Amino acid sequence: MQVAIAAFPRMTALDAIGPYEVLQRIPSLDLVFVGEQRGEIRTENGFLGLTVDATYDEVPSPDVVVVPGGVGTRKLLDGGPLVDWTRDTYVGAHFTTSVCTGSLILAAAGLLDGLEATTHWSAMDKLAELGAKPVTRRVIEHLGLRLIIAAGVSSGIDMALRLAELLVDTTAAKATQTLIEYDPEPPFDAGHPSKVDAAVMARVDEYRAVRA
Amino acid sequence: MQVAIAAFPRMTALDAIGPYEVLQRIPSLDLVFVGEQRGEIRTENGFLGLTVDATYDEVPSPDVVVVPGGVGTRKLLDGGPLVDWTRDTYVGAHFTTSVCTGSLILAAAGLLDGLEATTHWSAMDKLAELGAKPVTRRVIEHLGLRLIIAAGVSSGIDMALRLAELLVDTTAAKATQTLIEYDPEPPFDAGHPSKVDAAVMARVDEYRAVRA
Repeated sequence: MQVAIAAFPRMTALDAIGPYEVLQRIPSLDLVFVGEQRGEIRTENGFLGLTVDATYDEVPSPDVVVVPGGVGTRKLLDGGPLVDWTRDTYVGAHFTTSVCTGSLILAAAGLLDGLEATTHWSAMDKLAELGAKPVTRRVIEHLGLRLIIAAGVSSGIDMALRLAELLVDTTAAKATQTLIEYDPEPPFDAGHPSKVDAAVMARVDEYRAVRA
Repeated sequence: MQVAIAAFPRMTALDAIGPYEVLQRIPSLDLVFVGEQRGEIRTENGFLGLTVDATYDEVPSPDVVVVPGGVGTRKLLDGGPLVDWTRDTYVGAHFTTSVCTGSLILAAAGLLDGLEATTHWSAMDKLAELGAKPVTRRVIEHLGLRLIIAAGVSSGIDMALRLAELLVDTTAAKATQTLIEYDPEPPFDAGHPSKVDAAVMARVDEYRAVRA
């Protein structure tokens, strides 16, 4: 079974690597990073290069599609190869999934019209503009439509474990969770704007003004 | 402040990308992936290429060192550039840290002799062989020794948030946690062998026989 993960300039690395790390442990899954061109792309602020191993044209019918987000999505929303590939592969895929602002790409491809969906907390308005109904939830499943939509960045790990269950079975999901020792102990209860005070949000704004 | 993340063939991607994703959000930190040679390395089962941007020699005095793990560590434990660089950079670094079997590298460099430390649950015996005292805990801090050691794979995210607090302040840590929306909701309580049954561990063994 082929899992295709989209990769593009200024994507958020963890959006992709979270699901990758879960799914690559399962022997029945083959993973490939796909993009507009083969070769290196630089993530987010440029500190990390990832390799695109196949073009969108070369991976026309993956079984699973994962679209990560990141500031780099903004340039892609008006259409182009990623939006086209997301729309085209949806027809035959078992599941089309997104992490973070990857859902904006799915929305731009017309897959989320009128549907409850989620994204990074900072992009809820944009998601609504693109036709979805934004909901604050970590993972949203539309199983009849073969769509799974995760919230910001780290939520892709939670999403991928559920995807492992759907693709294989519950034992597979628990086995991969054990393998990646995903027994989180966040040092703070601070994973969403609803959980932090104004001083933290001021720092969030300060950091966002400089770094993706 | 310079944060250097080691990269080598068959490393576990999430070991590195978890801390990367937290720390790259903080404008006062510059991150660099370092390795034996510049250019691409392939992680784990080969599905993902990451770029090494500088050699160990080119980054002789980083402020923070992050050593990820993965099956690729095994070949490196008898000494060589990564063990030497870990030992040499320790002298001047504010913090030397590891994720997963990255702690085996720190131990091979002599940094963990007689100290409580942790690693991936599957490598506890190896850690003891290398002179440390293995303990099942998600993050172990020896602040006087400027060492922070995380358990398997995903624990690097928890470790890096604590590191953000130590390097900057609590507000910085909470801001980055908010930015990566790290409010985990694992779909199963299965992140460690102590939490799963024999059927899951049989699947773990089956997967490990094929995939890293």
